[in-house]
Amino acid sequence: MLRNLKLVVSYDGSPYSGWQVQPGRATIQCTLADAIERITGERTMPQGSGRTDAGVHALAQVATFTTSSSIPSGNLVKALNSVLPASIRALAVEDVPEGFHARHSAKAKTYEYRLYRGDVCPPFLANFVTHHPYPLDESAMAEAAGRVVGEHDFTSFAAVDPEKGLAEEHASNVRTIFSSDWRRNGDEFIYRVRGSGFLHHMVRNLVGTFLLVGKGTLKPSDLDDILAARKRSAAGATAPAEGLYLVSVEY
Amino acid sequence: MLRNLKLVVSYDGSPYSGWQVQPGRATIQCTLADAIERITGERTMPQGSGRTDAGVHALAQVATFTTSSSIPSGNLVKALNSVLPASIRALAVEDVPEGFHARHSAKAKTYEYRLYRGDVCPPFLANFVTHHPYPLDESAMAEAAGRVVGEHDFTSFAAVDPEKGLAEEHASNVRTIFSSDWRRNGDEFIYRVRGSGFLHHMVRNLVGTFLLVGKGTLKPSDLDDILAARKRSAAGATAPAEGLYLVSVEY
Repeated sequence: MLRNLKLVVSYDGSPYSGWQVQPGRATIQCTLADAIERITGERTMPQGSGRTDAGVHALAQVATFTTSSSIPSGNLVKALNSVLPASIRALAVEDVPEGFHARHSAKAKTYEYRLYRGDVCPPFLANFVTHHPYPLDESAMAEAAGRVVGEHDFTSFAAVDPEKGLAEEHASNVRTIFSSDWRRNGDEFIYRVRGSGFLHHMVRNLVGTFLLVGKGTLKPSDLDDILAARKRSAAGATAPAEGLYLVSVEY
Repeated sequence: MLRNLKLVVSYDGSPYSGWQVQPGRATIQCTLADAIERITGERTMPQGSGRTDAGVHALAQVATFTTSSSIPSGNLVKALNSVLPASIRALAVEDVPEGFHARHSAKAKTYEYRLYRGDVCPPFLANFVTHHPYPLDESAMAEAAGRVVGEHDFTSFAAVDPEKGLAEEHASNVRTIFSSDWRRNGDEFIYRVRGSGFLHHMVRNLVGTFLLVGKGTLKPSDLDDILAARKRSAAGATAPAEGLYLVSVEY
């Protein structure tokens, strides 16, 4: 009997060229496929809730894959962790109905972006935060973050992907943001956003734009105009990958 | 005028083959020498308070070096951090008297050893803790740790170094431990030891022996006999490098 399994994984993205399988490169998806093959003897490509870029981390990414193996799901967690590198950890495996798909069934996702604000970034955080020791108006950034809550066309914050297919190009860039805020945690200033879905680079482009607000180049109210412009050049630069975490996926 | 400078550095030891310069290998000492040379134009080898092994970290290692450069010590911190890799950070630089030497002038050192006790070690901690999810009698380990406080001959906990010079071989293995204890911090069980000085591998060999107490192979009182035996084979195995941190050096 073919089982459909939901896998929850956490990973340090720094040693990988992102989630998606690419020839000749270490990726999370391929490393998971290799581990599943070692355990079950079957080659299958786990489908993630979405791609994460090179250097982006996950506290709880979700992927689905099918298997004819009869290994109980609880044992699969231990088995996977015994063959996976320490930079990728399986947190849970469970049987799900045939129609469940990590990406198509997702109802909401949460991301975090960690800025380290101290003068000297501890070496132990070098791959895990973006170091920004320069002055920022943090309350203006918090105000700007609130402006994107709700249903909007996020074209201004979507990567312009030359290799995007026609179907994707004509797909809607409207997404709903349920919450969007910045908070302080010691020397870190952390952005947390929960939404119905996210376009490619959307969180990093939002953070890059909030940084312009923090520097005083933009006002919080400029976010409304940037959303209305629906063009990538209206928003700020893409913030670096290493501060970004996929926190959770809801179904 | 030749100045004597005291440099305090923090580093993630995981990408390095330890502190000491070695041909064809990336080491902390060599990386610092390269950075100093880029800033001052002078080739000088900073002398550390002691060597740390491959994979061992430092919150605040101390090194001394001489320079004829007139760059103010405060500016040197920023200049060094601008050329050092993010895995090594200069925390402070100060002018010290001619006779001051990072190793010879040290009065006490503190180390920590971090054991991660949860079932699944977060990928972000993989290089920064030793994962030990198996049962341990933590209070017996704490009791054993207390047994090494005071002045003892630590030969049983010293690495048997075949390449050790004659002078070193006849040097005393007597050291004074001022404090030695284990504490819980969430999912981590952390050993902290402060002493007059430490032999090669001494902290990792102490931890390896405390682990045998935790497993019930040894009793806390066996530490007295192991110290008295003065031979390496009486104690436990060397615990892995990645959990060890040089916390501070006192002068």
